[in-house]
Amino acid sequence: MTIPSQKPSTMPWQRYSAFPPIDLPDRTWPFKTITQAPRWLSTDLRDGNQALIDPMNPARKMAMFDLLVKMGYKEIEVGFPSASETDFSFVRQLIEGDKIPDDVTISVLTQAREDLIERSVQSLIGVPRANIHLYNALAPLFRRVVFRAGKDEIKDIGVRGTELVMKYGDAHLDMTVIGYEYSPEIFTSTELPFSLEVCEAVSDVWQPEDGREIILNLPATVEVATPNVYADQIEWFSRQLTRRENTVISLHPHNDRGTAVAATELAMMAGADRVEGCLFGHGERTGNVDLVTLGMNLFSQGIDPQVDFSDIDEIRRTVEYCTQLPVHPRHPYAGDLVYTAFSGSHQDAIKKGLEDLERQAEERGVEVGSLLWEAPYLPIDPKDVGRTYEAVIRVNSQSGKGGVAYVLKAEHKLDLPRRAQIEFSRVVQERTDAEGGEMTSEAIWSVFRSEYLDRTAPLELDSVHTSSAAGQRDALDVDVRVDGEARSLHGEGNGPLSAFCAAINELPQEWDVRILDYAEHALTAGGDSLAAAYVECAVRDGVFWGVGIDANIVTASLKAVVSAVNRAG
Amino acid sequence: MTIPSQKPSTMPWQRYSAFPPIDLPDRTWPFKTITQAPRWLSTDLRDGNQALIDPMNPARKMAMFDLLVKMGYKEIEVGFPSASETDFSFVRQLIEGDKIPDDVTISVLTQAREDLIERSVQSLIGVPRANIHLYNALAPLFRRVVFRAGKDEIKDIGVRGTELVMKYGDAHLDMTVIGYEYSPEIFTSTELPFSLEVCEAVSDVWQPEDGREIILNLPATVEVATPNVYADQIEWFSRQLTRRENTVISLHPHNDRGTAVAATELAMMAGADRVEGCLFGHGERTGNVDLVTLGMNLFSQGIDPQVDFSDIDEIRRTVEYCTQLPVHPRHPYAGDLVYTAFSGSHQDAIKKGLEDLERQAEERGVEVGSLLWEAPYLPIDPKDVGRTYEAVIRVNSQSGKGGVAYVLKAEHKLDLPRRAQIEFSRVVQERTDAEGGEMTSEAIWSVFRSEYLDRTAPLELDSVHTSSAAGQRDALDVDVRVDGEARSLHGEGNGPLSAFCAAINELPQEWDVRILDYAEHALTAGGDSLAAAYVECAVRDGVFWGVGIDANIVTASLKAVVSAVNRAG
Repeated sequence: MTIPSQKPSTMPWQRYSAFPPIDLPDRTWPFKTITQAPRWLSTDLRDGNQALIDPMNPARKMAMFDLLVKMGYKEIEVGFPSASETDFSFVRQLIEGDKIPDDVTISVLTQAREDLIERSVQSLIGVPRANIHLYNALAPLFRRVVFRAGKDEIKDIGVRGTELVMKYGDAHLDMTVIGYEYSPEIFTSTELPFSLEVCEAVSDVWQPEDGREIILNLPATVEVATPNVYADQIEWFSRQLTRRENTVISLHPHNDRGTAVAATELAMMAGADRVEGCLFGHGERTGNVDLVTLGMNLFSQGIDPQVDFSDIDEIRRTVEYCTQLPVHPRHPYAGDLVYTAFSGSHQDAIKKGLEDLERQAEERGVEVGSLLWEAPYLPIDPKDVGRTYEAVIRVNSQSGKGGVAYVLKAEHKLDLPRRAQIEFSRVVQERTDAEGGEMTSEAIWSVFRSEYLDRTAPLELDSVHTSSAAGQRDALDVDVRVDGEARSLHGEGNGPLSAFCAAINELPQEWDVRILDYAEHALTAGGDSLAAAYVECAVRDGVFWGVGIDANIVTASLKAVVSAVNRAG
Repeated sequence: MTIPSQKPSTMPWQRYSAFPPIDLPDRTWPFKTITQAPRWLSTDLRDGNQALIDPMNPARKMAMFDLLVKMGYKEIEVGFPSASETDFSFVRQLIEGDKIPDDVTISVLTQAREDLIERSVQSLIGVPRANIHLYNALAPLFRRVVFRAGKDEIKDIGVRGTELVMKYGDAHLDMTVIGYEYSPEIFTSTELPFSLEVCEAVSDVWQPEDGREIILNLPATVEVATPNVYADQIEWFSRQLTRRENTVISLHPHNDRGTAVAATELAMMAGADRVEGCLFGHGERTGNVDLVTLGMNLFSQGIDPQVDFSDIDEIRRTVEYCTQLPVHPRHPYAGDLVYTAFSGSHQDAIKKGLEDLERQAEERGVEVGSLLWEAPYLPIDPKDVGRTYEAVIRVNSQSGKGGVAYVLKAEHKLDLPRRAQIEFSRVVQERTDAEGGEMTSEAIWSVFRSEYLDRTAPLELDSVHTSSAAGQRDALDVDVRVDGEARSLHGEGNGPLSAFCAAINELPQEWDVRILDYAEHALTAGGDSLAAAYVECAVRDGVFWGVGIDANIVTASLKAVVSAVNRAG
C-alpha cells in the first residue's frame, strides 16, 4: 500500500534548537526502581499561590495549611514574606497563633538581597524551627541578559546571601533551630559544573555536618528536555558533590513539557532525596509537579506515600476552594472521569475482575481489601481514595446519540455538572439493572423528575423572602413544610444559600446540610427566563446533588437544596 | 537541626505490588535523542469519542475530522463501526460524501469476532485506502478472569481475526488498498515473550513485505509503571521482532500515572515509529497521550512536528466544542495561564529577554523571528501558536489581597471567565503603563465600567422580544440604535444569542459577529436577581469579550454581545 506520508509544516521550528544530551554513559538510574517515598515539601502556599489569578486570602491560606498538615506533609513552604505583606502576615499568624505542629517545619523563600533576607528572617521570630530558602538565578541567559554579570559575581550572590542568612539568623532567631535550603535557579539550563561550583561554595559557608544538613534544591524552573535528561543531570550532580551524606538533594520540577511527574520519578531513581511540588500541580505557568499523582503513583506500586489521600474528593474540594481553579476531569487519581468505564467491554471486564476478587476472598475466608489488587482497567481500587468505580451506561435514545447526560441536555436543556451526571447515570443504571432492557429518553426524563424534581417530602418549599444590605449578612425568611407541617424559619449567611442552610439546620431533623458545590444556568433555548440550579450538598454523612428549576434564580437554588435534602431522606 | 520525619500513612499500600523491572541491561534508548516526528495517528474520533460524557454527534464528528485534516494528520481512526450505528453511519458519510483527502488514510477498530469484522469491512466499501485495526487482549488477568482461556486459545483469536480481515477484505473491498494494524491489548501488562509470539503469528498471516507493511500497535492500555519501563518494553520488542523493516511499531499510551507524554517520548527513543493519541489527551479514564503536547515538545526542540499548531486557540475551541470538556488552564502550550507571568521578577526577566532579542535582531538587520528563540520562563515564543505573552499585573487593593479579578469578584460579585480576566488585566495594565502608579479598587471598577458596561456606540439596545416553540428555531425582534439611529431588527437562531447575532449581522456595518464562549451567573450576594453575562465574540477579525448586567438573563446576555461589538468599534 501507499504509506501515508506526513508533510513538512509551515511552523517555524528552525527557531529552536535541541537540548544537548548529558555525557553520562555510565548512568545507573535506568537500572533502579523507586522503593520509598521521598521527603516531600509542599509549595502550594508559595509557588502555587503566586501563580493564581486570585491569590489566596488569609482564610483560604489557612484552609490550605490545615489540609497539608492533615494529609501528613512535614515540610511546608508558607510564603515569600519579603515580597508580600500578605505573606508576611500569614507567617506571623501561623507562629503567633501556634498553628504549626511540633513535627512540621515551615520554610520561607527569599531572594539574595540583604534587606529581603533580614525581612524574611524577621517574619520567623518566635518559631521553634524553620528553613530559610534562598535562591539566585545561575543560567547563562540570566547572567547575560537579566543581570549582566559574570560567573564570579553570580556565584558571589549565592555565597553572600548564605552568609547573610546566617548573620541575621544569629541576630534575630536565637530561639529557633534554623535549617537552610539553597536553589541554584534555572538549574536545568545552567552549565552543570557551574551549578556544582556555586553549590559547593554555598556549602562551604553553611558547613553541613552530621545533624546540620543543607538542602540543595535543583529546580527544573522551566522544563526544557525529555525527562531522562533531568535524571542525567541529577545523577551527574549527586555523584560529583562532596559532603553528599549531609546534603539533601531536592527536586523542584515544572511541567512545561507535560513530563514533570516523569522527570521527578526518574530523578528520584537518579538519587534525589526530596521533592517540592503542589497538590494537583499548581504553580507558575503549567505548574509545579503534582504531589497527588506522585504520591498515588508510589501507592499503586506498593510503597507507602507517607501522605494520606484516602479522601481524595475532600482534598480536591479544598484545593479548588483555595485556588479557585478546577481539577481536570481526566486528572490522574482524582478527576471525575478516571474511575468511569463507558464502553461495554470495559465494563464487562471490570465486572468479572471484581467478581473474581470477591470469589478469591470468599475462598480464602478473608476480606477483599486484604488481597493484592488486580482488576482490568483500574490501576487502583477507587475505594482506597474514597471513590467508587462508576460504570457509566450509554442509553441509546432514538437519535442514537447516547448518554443520559445527552438526553437531558439535548431534550431538556439541562446541563448537569459532571459529578451530578455521574450520580444520575448511577440512578438510571440501578433502574435498568432492576427492570432490564434499554431506557427510552422519556423514561430517563421520568426517572430524573421523580429523583430530583418532584420530591416534596420530608421538606417542601412554600415561600421565600430575602434581604441584604451592603456590609451585612444576608437574611432569609422562608415558609416550608416539614413532613407536611408548616413552619416559618429564619436564617442568615453570606448569601441566600448559606442563609437557607442555616435556617433548615435549626430543624430537629439535624440534617446538617452544607453546600459543597453549586452551578446555575439559564434554560436559554426556552425563550423564557427559567433557571436551572444544581447544588451538591453534604447531608448528614452522605453527599447528594439536588436540582431546582424556577423563574427566580434564588428560588431555583433553594429548590435544589430541598431536592438534595429529600433525596437524603 | 531535627530532621522532620514523615510518618507511615494508614493507606493500604500493602494491597499493591511494584511492577517488575525489564531485564535489559544493554538498553540503548537513554543514549538517544528524538530527531524527527513519528507517524501520528489521531484516535480522537474513536478512543477519544468513546470516553466522552456526551459523545460527538455527526456535526461534532465532522468538525473534529475537518480539524484533524487541516492540522495535517494523515492517519485518522474514525470509529468503531461494528460497535455503534453512529460510528458506522459516520464512516459511510465520510466515504460517500468524498470527505477524505487523497493523502489521508482512515482506519476503523474492530474486535476479533467474525460478525464484527465483516461489519467493519462493510463500513469501508468504496474507500480508496483504509487501515483495519484489530485487537484482542493478551494479559494474564484477562486470560484468567475475562476469557478463561489459555495462551494458545488467546493467540488463535488474533491469528484467526487476521485471517478474517483478509478474507472479508478480499470479498468486499476489491476497490480498496487495505492496510492492517494489530494491537496486542494490555501490552504493558502482558509477558513480553507472549506478546512477541502472538505478533509474530499474526505477521505470519499478514505476510508483510516491501510495500506491504504491518502496524503492530503496543498499547499501554493502562499505565502501570514509570515511563522508562515502557521504553524498555518497546526496545526489547523491537530488537526481538523479525521482519522489523516492514513492521511499523506503534505506541498507544494512556495516562493513568500522569506520564504518558514521557512514556511516549522515551519509547520513541527506544525505536517506535508511530504514535496514537488524542488532541489534549482525551480517551478512556485519564485519557490517551496528548498529541498537542507531543507535537509542541518536538517543535520546541527544533523538530518539525509535521502538524500545524499555529492557531492553538482555534484548535482548543474546536476540541472543546467537539468533546464538551474543557482544556485545563495549566495545560502545556494551550492553557489560559501558560504564557502568563504573575510575579514581578519573572515579568522583569521576560521583558529584558524580549528586549535583548529585539536588540540582536536590530544589530543584525533581521527579523526577531529569524533568531534562535531564547527568553526567560518562556520555552517557546507564544506567537508561534497564535498566543501572546501576558504580563498579568497584581493590583494591590487596600485589602492587600491583590488582583483585578479579585477586586471585581470581592467587591462587585463579578466572576469573570479566565480569558476575560486576562483580557481585562491587559486593559488595566495599559492604563497603569500610561498613567503610572498603582490603581485603587475604585479606579479598577471605573475602568471596567467604561470598558465593558457603559459604551453605547456604535450599538445600543432598546427593547427585546423573543419567541420560541418546541421544534422551531428561536425568533427575536429587537429595537436597537446604530450610531444613534433607531432600527428594528429580526433574527432567528438556536437561541436568543444566535438569533441576535443573525439580526445584527444583517446591518451594513458587517460586524460578522460570532459567539465563541459564553458564561452567565447570578449576582447572588445582592439578594435581588440580577444576572451577569460574559460573551466572547469574534467581531470581524478580532476577538473581544463583552459583559452585560440585567435583571433579565436574556437581556444581560444580549447586552454582553453589544458590549463586545462596541469594544470592537
